[in-house]
Amino acid sequence: MVQYKEAAAARQIDRVTAAISDPTRRAIIERLARGPGRISDIAAPFSMTLTGFCKHVRVLERAGLVRRTRRGRENTLTLSPEPLRDVAQWVRNYEKFWNSRLDRLHDFFANEKEKEISQ
Amino acid sequence: MVQYKEAAAARQIDRVTAAISDPTRRAIIERLARGPGRISDIAAPFSMTLTGFCKHVRVLERAGLVRRTRRGRENTLTLSPEPLRDVAQWVRNYEKFWNSRLDRLHDFFANEKEKEISQ
Repeated sequence: MVQYKEAAAARQIDRVTAAISDPTRRAIIERLARGPGRISDIAAPFSMTLTGFCKHVRVLERAGLVRRTRRGRENTLTLSPEPLRDVAQWVRNYEKFWNSRLDRLHDFFANEKEKEISQ
Repeated sequence: MVQYKEAAAARQIDRVTAAISDPTRRAIIERLARGPGRISDIAAPFSMTLTGFCKHVRVLERAGLVRRTRRGRENTLTLSPEPLRDVAQWVRNYEKFWNSRLDRLHDFFANEKEKEISQ
């Protein structure tokens, strides 16, 4: 059961990271972070056909990053950022490496400065 | 020039997010976070051929996440986690959404509790 849940969580991260590996899809997420909008309004600034745009939206929907709701005559797109949380958590495991490298750099320069002062 | 740099940065995030969208490649990163190792030792616990394993390593190398160095008779793999930093920064933009939703939930429960007490 735990293994099943872990496998499902891994597949979810697979879908989310693949979804954000495209600049158009990241731009759609960035646009929707400013608020929901009608699909044709959201698509307008992108230099592609509505069909091409909708393909990207479907990838985002399957990853759980975008919700499509029917309002009046046209679909509205809304950001659903929660799945990005798992990606943030996974990536955060490696923050200690950047920090420790920065710490080492800091120590190096602090030492160099001390040498300079004592000379 | 700025546009060129931005495009190059976007391509780099594309490669890194695509590289981590596979569970085997994430597992290689997790293993290398514990220290570098000979390619055959790192490959051993994975249930795949060395050729299949090396394909995953090449994707990680192209994304700048793994370095391969020749030591003695065999290649050594070392983690190079810096490119994950851009992904962390991009994802962090959406943290405010999780936090604000949690804040709203907190306010909701605080209100419910107050109502209970005043009844």
